[in-house]
Amino acid sequence: MPSYTAPAKDMQFVLHDLLEISTQDVPGYSDMDAEFTGAIIDTLGQLATEVIHPLNMVGDRQGCTLENGVVRTPDGFKDAFDQLRDGGWTALDAPEEFGGQGLPYLSYTIAGEILSASNMAFNMYYGLTHGAASAILAHGTEAQKAKWLPKMHSCEWTGTMNLTEPHAGTDLGMMRTKAVPQTDGTYKITGQKIFISAGDHDMADNIVHLVLAKIEGAPEGIKGVSLFIVPKILVDDEGNLGARNGVSVGKIEEKMGIHGNSTCVMNYDGATGYLLGQEHKGMRAMFTMMNEARLGVGLQGYAQSEIAYQNALAYALDRLQGRDVTGVKNPDGPADPLIVHPDIRRNLMDQKSFVEGARAFTFWGATMIDRAHRLEDKDADGLISLLTPVIKGFLTDKGFEYATAAQQVYGGHGYIEEWGMSQFARDARIAMIYEGANGVQALDLVGRKLAQDGGKHVMAFFEMVKTFCKENDGDEMKGFVAPLKAASKDLQAAGMYFMQNGMKNPNAALAGSYDFMHMMGHVCLGLMWARMAKAAMEGLKKDGADRDFLEAKIATGRYYMARQLPATAMHLGRIQTGPETIMGLEATAF
Amino acid sequence: MPSYTAPAKDMQFVLHDLLEISTQDVPGYSDMDAEFTGAIIDTLGQLATEVIHPLNMVGDRQGCTLENGVVRTPDGFKDAFDQLRDGGWTALDAPEEFGGQGLPYLSYTIAGEILSASNMAFNMYYGLTHGAASAILAHGTEAQKAKWLPKMHSCEWTGTMNLTEPHAGTDLGMMRTKAVPQTDGTYKITGQKIFISAGDHDMADNIVHLVLAKIEGAPEGIKGVSLFIVPKILVDDEGNLGARNGVSVGKIEEKMGIHGNSTCVMNYDGATGYLLGQEHKGMRAMFTMMNEARLGVGLQGYAQSEIAYQNALAYALDRLQGRDVTGVKNPDGPADPLIVHPDIRRNLMDQKSFVEGARAFTFWGATMIDRAHRLEDKDADGLISLLTPVIKGFLTDKGFEYATAAQQVYGGHGYIEEWGMSQFARDARIAMIYEGANGVQALDLVGRKLAQDGGKHVMAFFEMVKTFCKENDGDEMKGFVAPLKAASKDLQAAGMYFMQNGMKNPNAALAGSYDFMHMMGHVCLGLMWARMAKAAMEGLKKDGADRDFLEAKIATGRYYMARQLPATAMHLGRIQTGPETIMGLEATAF
Repeated sequence: MPSYTAPAKDMQFVLHDLLEISTQDVPGYSDMDAEFTGAIIDTLGQLATEVIHPLNMVGDRQGCTLENGVVRTPDGFKDAFDQLRDGGWTALDAPEEFGGQGLPYLSYTIAGEILSASNMAFNMYYGLTHGAASAILAHGTEAQKAKWLPKMHSCEWTGTMNLTEPHAGTDLGMMRTKAVPQTDGTYKITGQKIFISAGDHDMADNIVHLVLAKIEGAPEGIKGVSLFIVPKILVDDEGNLGARNGVSVGKIEEKMGIHGNSTCVMNYDGATGYLLGQEHKGMRAMFTMMNEARLGVGLQGYAQSEIAYQNALAYALDRLQGRDVTGVKNPDGPADPLIVHPDIRRNLMDQKSFVEGARAFTFWGATMIDRAHRLEDKDADGLISLLTPVIKGFLTDKGFEYATAAQQVYGGHGYIEEWGMSQFARDARIAMIYEGANGVQALDLVGRKLAQDGGKHVMAFFEMVKTFCKENDGDEMKGFVAPLKAASKDLQAAGMYFMQNGMKNPNAALAGSYDFMHMMGHVCLGLMWARMAKAAMEGLKKDGADRDFLEAKIATGRYYMARQLPATAMHLGRIQTGPETIMGLEATAF
Repeated sequence: MPSYTAPAKDMQFVLHDLLEISTQDVPGYSDMDAEFTGAIIDTLGQLATEVIHPLNMVGDRQGCTLENGVVRTPDGFKDAFDQLRDGGWTALDAPEEFGGQGLPYLSYTIAGEILSASNMAFNMYYGLTHGAASAILAHGTEAQKAKWLPKMHSCEWTGTMNLTEPHAGTDLGMMRTKAVPQTDGTYKITGQKIFISAGDHDMADNIVHLVLAKIEGAPEGIKGVSLFIVPKILVDDEGNLGARNGVSVGKIEEKMGIHGNSTCVMNYDGATGYLLGQEHKGMRAMFTMMNEARLGVGLQGYAQSEIAYQNALAYALDRLQGRDVTGVKNPDGPADPLIVHPDIRRNLMDQKSFVEGARAFTFWGATMIDRAHRLEDKDADGLISLLTPVIKGFLTDKGFEYATAAQQVYGGHGYIEEWGMSQFARDARIAMIYEGANGVQALDLVGRKLAQDGGKHVMAFFEMVKTFCKENDGDEMKGFVAPLKAASKDLQAAGMYFMQNGMKNPNAALAGSYDFMHMMGHVCLGLMWARMAKAAMEGLKKDGADRDFLEAKIATGRYYMARQLPATAMHLGRIQTGPETIMGLEATAF
């Protein structure tokens, strides 16, 4: 049976040694000192270890069932959800006026890693609610906020996002769900939505669906799409639950993983809906949710890699198989533990250096969201907008890759479901697909974000890397700064190639978009590792330093810089071969 | 629902344009002209399309069940197995004196791709039998061969390989299964084996288990292991089935994939066994099976990628989503097909260029096996021994990677089981693990095979690449020869690094073994692509050439050379950073 322990020491290092959050000028950060964040991590970590993680395999085995229109979640989910709700964990970063604790978004990210790593399918019920509540907070009227948010923040009511239809996934302009205006200002919503995570379940009194639909007579395509609040059960102005709305579950999808989450086909049959935000501006409102959701999905990617790594490491330390070629390490046993073998170590170091780098990158991203929201910092807003597709695309691709690598450490046992390693990989797989498949993330990055605001944000990013390298060009940091410089230079060369060739032929840029996304991911993790190494080196100079931890941190960073970062040269080489080898073949010649 | 069509045109190109098999001097090859191989591919292909592939998803959904000690295979498996057997497909390459058709091993490989791609779990019942029969053929007495082989070649009786025990996987020396000699020359076998593919089922009259065990008083470790034939049902000297042997199924494992194959825990309780080969030389006998099995597993890797690619391509041509940024391609439809998008094409070209290269590599490998067996060609034997871990490790890693990439083309539908794309990835995953996890393949390659016979075979490999490059250094082949030269140079530099550093510190070589295996895989596929391009260019000069096919072949090769082969530089860079970043961390500091 696998297990999970919140990586408290590493989280605290990122928060306080790397990001130094409690001295940042973001409102609310001064309260988040090491004691406070330590308490969050320890308390929630205990709930995750003892209650939520033990349900991870239960959820995978049982899945959700639909009987007589009612969705049942796996045994134990409801009780655990009650504990999550009663502990106040679902309202950490919600505004106090709507029942929340008013903490920064970063608190949600810290909790999110713990919850997602320990049980991804379970945590999605809350995660979707958080996203839907954010959209209502950003685009709702005061009356809407007052009506829906407090119950959503407490997760007494949960939320969903309804975008996809059978024939309309990425291309939402083709959607057919209709909204017919009523004389009372409401709309009747009719249509079918698919792939609705947490679409229905038995853990909340109501479900607040956010549904994209086209108002009769709306413009064609994506510009005619509006967003609606469509509750499962109608709510009167005093907040009392009333009649069932015209919303039903068509079926629960059978998926590769995240079986504990009910992925539903949702049917809307003249259901009452309330316009959220402006008519025909539904995509704008939905993007509020989607950007946040994309960060959350990037987090899911590395969180599955984190728990897979924890278990792979435990197995590598415990399982006796073969002998160290340089000399027996466990003379009293029949064999040495797996971890003596160089290729097992290579595999573990790949995982460890990715997960720790990804955590730093994601937490850093969360601080940018707080800066953008709490300080109205436009630069931070632009930078996180640029980096969102990288966090989503790169961290989920690598998260899956390393969850799979962790499975490999177990040999044949990794393929047997009772050991739990298969589930981490199967669950992680969805993160590469939903909230915009990773190819779409690459398109967003290269086709939109690079040029946003005249390329200002990507230039600021390069400037940031350059400044860091200049300020840290001493001998001590050489093993970090030199590779970071080289990788950043590769990335700039790729951007230059796109500028020079993409205007004439957009395919010259788009054919290289996936490679670019991965290059940028490596540069971001390289920057994180260089900064973490610097923080660790400074930490080592202090009295009472945790030398073992800090030295391991530096060693792990050296691994990433030496063995992962040079991938940028390969990606650049691919990009510079141009689009011809990709676009040349006629579709019929494949 | 997914579908499968045997890639007849591409297989024929590899067999006759690339390998020119019917003019090779291998006994039996002269019969294998294009008409003959075409008939194999078409006839078996039809059975695969119409009977075997439609059971692929059935097998995944139903799995195998154990009731009252009896294993039931999924609905339809038994009938399909009868058709496979009755068609003579299970005895293509078996010797005529034991009921086979006496065709070269290559015929087994051609059939193996078709069977494995269309239904991997189903084909394993036959594949294991083939491996077990090979071991009996190589190491059995004449009486043993006469007794067991004819029924195994017809698959009236199937076979298994029993190596792993709960505490002994890669490290077989720790096994505990015991063999006690009896006065009649037989042995009583007692112990438990796990992960036994096709361990029991309802499709054959008997099952012939090959079991590794230690004879009482044998030397410690791997040198005390012997191999035994242990039938499920005892067989008298006239070949009549008698009493049940002391063999039973403990349970069927629940796995990530290949659910249609019964992976059993096998219990041997004083079961009667017959020594196969010499006492304490069981590993040698087992390796006959394992080398062949490893080639078969490499084939499974790319075969799953092949069927996944076929279905991803069909979806990319059919699914309308978004518009070509350079101009609408499907003005009469609501959107353009997915294949207009550069990143979808990048993904499809990755898959296509891998699968076609892997097919060429594997078929070429099969010709080396035929040369080794039928001509006693020591060079071919040495070369295939060197390349076996590359075929197994590289083709299964990439096969899984691209089966996963094919899933991505489907977006959300790729994660839903009813579309079938998840199964290809889940089934492909095991190929990276069994018959020696891929890390063990890398160890075998770098730790054993490079230095085998004084490094003669790896030098011959480099010489072959060099000669090809020298003979084809004209302008026409420049786009192929230059990258191949560069990649081969990288590979040689890595080998040189190992030689210079590995003697002092074996970890310097072993820490780079995985990267080396991948480099070598790329060089092999690069060589295959260069040769295929040359064959295609020559083909284009002939009257009546299939220009569309041959031009697509060259274009696909250019893609591989431009975008995949340069990965060797990254792997070399990693190797040359040395083992310190991998071996430096104390086990307790992970």
